[in-house]
Amino acid sequence: MFTALKQRVLEANLLLPHYGLVTFTWGNVSEIDRQQGVIAIKPSGVSYDAMTVDDIVVVDLDGHTVEGVLNPSSDTATHLVLYHAFPALGGIVHTHSRSGTVWAQAGMDIPALGTTHADYFYGDIPCTRPLTRTEIDTDYEKHTGDVIVETFRQRDLDPMAVPSAVITGHAPFSWGKDAFDAVHNAVVLEEVAAMALSTRTLNREIRIQQALSDKHYFRKHGANAYYGQQ
Amino acid sequence: MFTALKQRVLEANLLLPHYGLVTFTWGNVSEIDRQQGVIAIKPSGVSYDAMTVDDIVVVDLDGHTVEGVLNPSSDTATHLVLYHAFPALGGIVHTHSRSGTVWAQAGMDIPALGTTHADYFYGDIPCTRPLTRTEIDTDYEKHTGDVIVETFRQRDLDPMAVPSAVITGHAPFSWGKDAFDAVHNAVVLEEVAAMALSTRTLNREIRIQQALSDKHYFRKHGANAYYGQQ
Amino acid sequence: MFTALKQRVLEANLLLPHYGLVTFTWGNVSEIDRQQGVIAIKPSGVSYDAMTVDDIVVVDLDGHTVEGVLNPSSDTATHLVLYHAFPALGGIVHTHSRSGTVWAQAGMDIPALGTTHADYFYGDIPCTRPLTRTEIDTDYEKHTGDVIVETFRQRDLDPMAVPSAVITGHAPFSWGKDAFDAVHNAVVLEEVAAMALSTRTLNREIRIQQALSDKHYFRKHGANAYYGQQ
Amino acid sequence: MFTALKQRVLEANLLLPHYGLVTFTWGNVSEIDRQQGVIAIKPSGVSYDAMTVDDIVVVDLDGHTVEGVLNPSSDTATHLVLYHAFPALGGIVHTHSRSGTVWAQAGMDIPALGTTHADYFYGDIPCTRPLTRTEIDTDYEKHTGDVIVETFRQRDLDPMAVPSAVITGHAPFSWGKDAFDAVHNAVVLEEVAAMALSTRTLNREIRIQQALSDKHYFRKHGANAYYGQQ
Repeated sequence: MFTALKQRVLEANLLLPHYGLVTFTWGNVSEIDRQQGVIAIKPSGVSYDAMTVDDIVVVDLDGHTVEGVLNPSSDTATHLVLYHAFPALGGIVHTHSRSGTVWAQAGMDIPALGTTHADYFYGDIPCTRPLTRTEIDTDYEKHTGDVIVETFRQRDLDPMAVPSAVITGHAPFSWGKDAFDAVHNAVVLEEVAAMALSTRTLNREIRIQQALSDKHYFRKHGANAYYGQQ
Repeated sequence: MFTALKQRVLEANLLLPHYGLVTFTWGNVSEIDRQQGVIAIKPSGVSYDAMTVDDIVVVDLDGHTVEGVLNPSSDTATHLVLYHAFPALGGIVHTHSRSGTVWAQAGMDIPALGTTHADYFYGDIPCTRPLTRTEIDTDYEKHTGDVIVETFRQRDLDPMAVPSAVITGHAPFSWGKDAFDAVHNAVVLEEVAAMALSTRTLNREIRIQQALSDKHYFRKHGANAYYGQQ
Repeated sequence: MFTALKQRVLEANLLLPHYGLVTFTWGNVSEIDRQQGVIAIKPSGVSYDAMTVDDIVVVDLDGHTVEGVLNPSSDTATHLVLYHAFPALGGIVHTHSRSGTVWAQAGMDIPALGTTHADYFYGDIPCTRPLTRTEIDTDYEKHTGDVIVETFRQRDLDPMAVPSAVITGHAPFSWGKDAFDAVHNAVVLEEVAAMALSTRTLNREIRIQQALSDKHYFRKHGANAYYGQQ
Repeated sequence: MFTALKQRVLEANLLLPHYGLVTFTWGNVSEIDRQQGVIAIKPSGVSYDAMTVDDIVVVDLDGHTVEGVLNPSSDTATHLVLYHAFPALGGIVHTHSRSGTVWAQAGMDIPALGTTHADYFYGDIPCTRPLTRTEIDTDYEKHTGDVIVETFRQRDLDPMAVPSAVITGHAPFSWGKDAFDAVHNAVVLEEVAAMALSTRTLNREIRIQQALSDKHYFRKHGANAYYGQQ
């Protein structure tokens, strides 16, 4: 029934090894069909090499499987929280890409240090607070989504202007208007995370000028954008 | 006689260059057949490019060759000590993979800093104490195995919950329920070693929360695991 | 009309992903035909995979399109400033290559630390001063070119002896006698930027001896060059 | 006349891009035929992609071309000094491989930190003293060879036990019993240089134990070697 959606989600998942963002079965991509009230997502623990469109799992917005025989990604509950809280999201990606994960492990925001970052992310990519023991022990994956939402609300961030977060002690989540846009943002996150890591070995304090960040972000986004063929 | 075992060990050895874990002839993989009382292991100093199933050497648990014409890996005695001491081990891998070797050279445990680590290793990957001059001069490879066993016993570690160690001044050993599982763990060790190296340039002290380590380890291992298709 | 020029510029642009200098549509190469009074340049935001010679845009030296239907690179104004100010330039490259961008983000010159650098760059690769808010808000891309020209004039640098600069908070520009020479210099910049980053982790102060820099630069450049088959 | 020698030198040179040790035309490999009193070496500034056996240049031990139409490598004089001073050398490699060059730029020996190093190099890989201005200005390439020889004599090093050096402000030279052995050592140098760089970010002081260095070196070299199939 959901073949087109599942095909897109399969292709977006296969981009993760293509871009070097995953090892083994790590990582997952989903996309939502808000009219049908479903998301399609990678199955849990299945190899990218062997994955077919029939392996993709379709679940409703309460997480019940409506199509597919495999278990959905163990991170499905995190995806659902984000789709519920952020109506503009069309696709979500989770990876343990190396440099993004390093910032998550360090418990630090990925700082906005240059125009590569500013072209895609309006300000720092936030790192969530540590979960409490209670949040970890019960409904862990749901609470991972909750702490992302809490972070964006407390800092008054627009999730479409800062389409990623890193989870303390864990790894990044990225999103976008659809599954492919989310993967695109996950690739950029990894690149700016790597650049920021090396920049910090030369200069512990420097940040991008606010005016330069504004310029680069808004020449690609919003009503006055002039980058590309729009 | 041991063709199936040798074929598996050949294939597992060929995964080492596939995953970028070895240079030249470095590294080796073995697997044990506990019923037959033998292990199959890579020959010493033979190129992965040219290796065939006939080159794999089968030795008994005292290290005497029972099938094959080449010398077994010079590290065979280390493998045998581990198989004797840890009955759950089915396969063992030794590599000089870059980041794992860096932690060994630094004489430091690979610290558990995130869920990537916790998904596979329950706590730090231990670094062994330096061998004494006497241990190095006589039966060096056997003593390398002994010091791994000593480390796990002194720290009361379960070798199947922490399926790797790094040897001071040397490099990692990894293991698993069979040769392929051991290679899998060697790949993960290299990835978490690289992540930990970069994390330490940002934050010298941080560690993963114990509750988060527990959560990730036990959602993949043991009776209550829910990751994957089990 | 400008097919040969556009074909060269297409090929030079395709070298950027070949050498690993770009992600997605980032980066651009141009070449000038000074007799015809035009430059050919990459279109804005177009994928390298799909780019054909018809996508390359030809603009006059005031930036008006004379051939092509797509928008030229958003950085076209920067290229034009450099071609106007530096008559020896035949080709220009802009990338966000990782290590070069790190030095730009750190706001630091790429220091001349060895003969690899000295073979191509006579002295440090300069980092421009930050642009003012006014320079950023109006005619940003033109001002990016202006600040490169200002840097070379204030430091009395020959742009053909130091064929690159890094822009504070942004990324590198490189150039050369034609588009292919410019790409060549962009590859070298990335390599020496990476080497310099690691060198600074070992030694914060060291620099190449001036006599050694002279020797290597002038064995490859100028009347007394003896490197190669000239 | 020297077709077989030139063919070997061609193949050994082509291994440099295969192993990722060179960018563009950088680097060169030579091999000596001591009975004929000649060396074959890469031509200067020629691309590896296009190189054929006819491009390889044969020069006598005074550096005069005896076969070939191209200029020999600009580093030929360095090779000749080493062949004259060290009678055991059969092949020599020069590269600007990234991590080896970093140690050269830092003006530091590559320290022996682990068994990967000890398997091939008996002790630190020495860094030469800076050349004087006079040594640079006249017969620079010859003096580069001289300072390597001086370093080995002053430190009483056996060039076959430590088959590499790094030149202050420049890059590594490696050698071996023939051209292929020299390339092998150049690959190992790059790997141990990279490992040592990262190890020093964790631990600024640690070194390999002397007994462990002895053990690994002598299990692969000399009368009592037992590694491999010898």
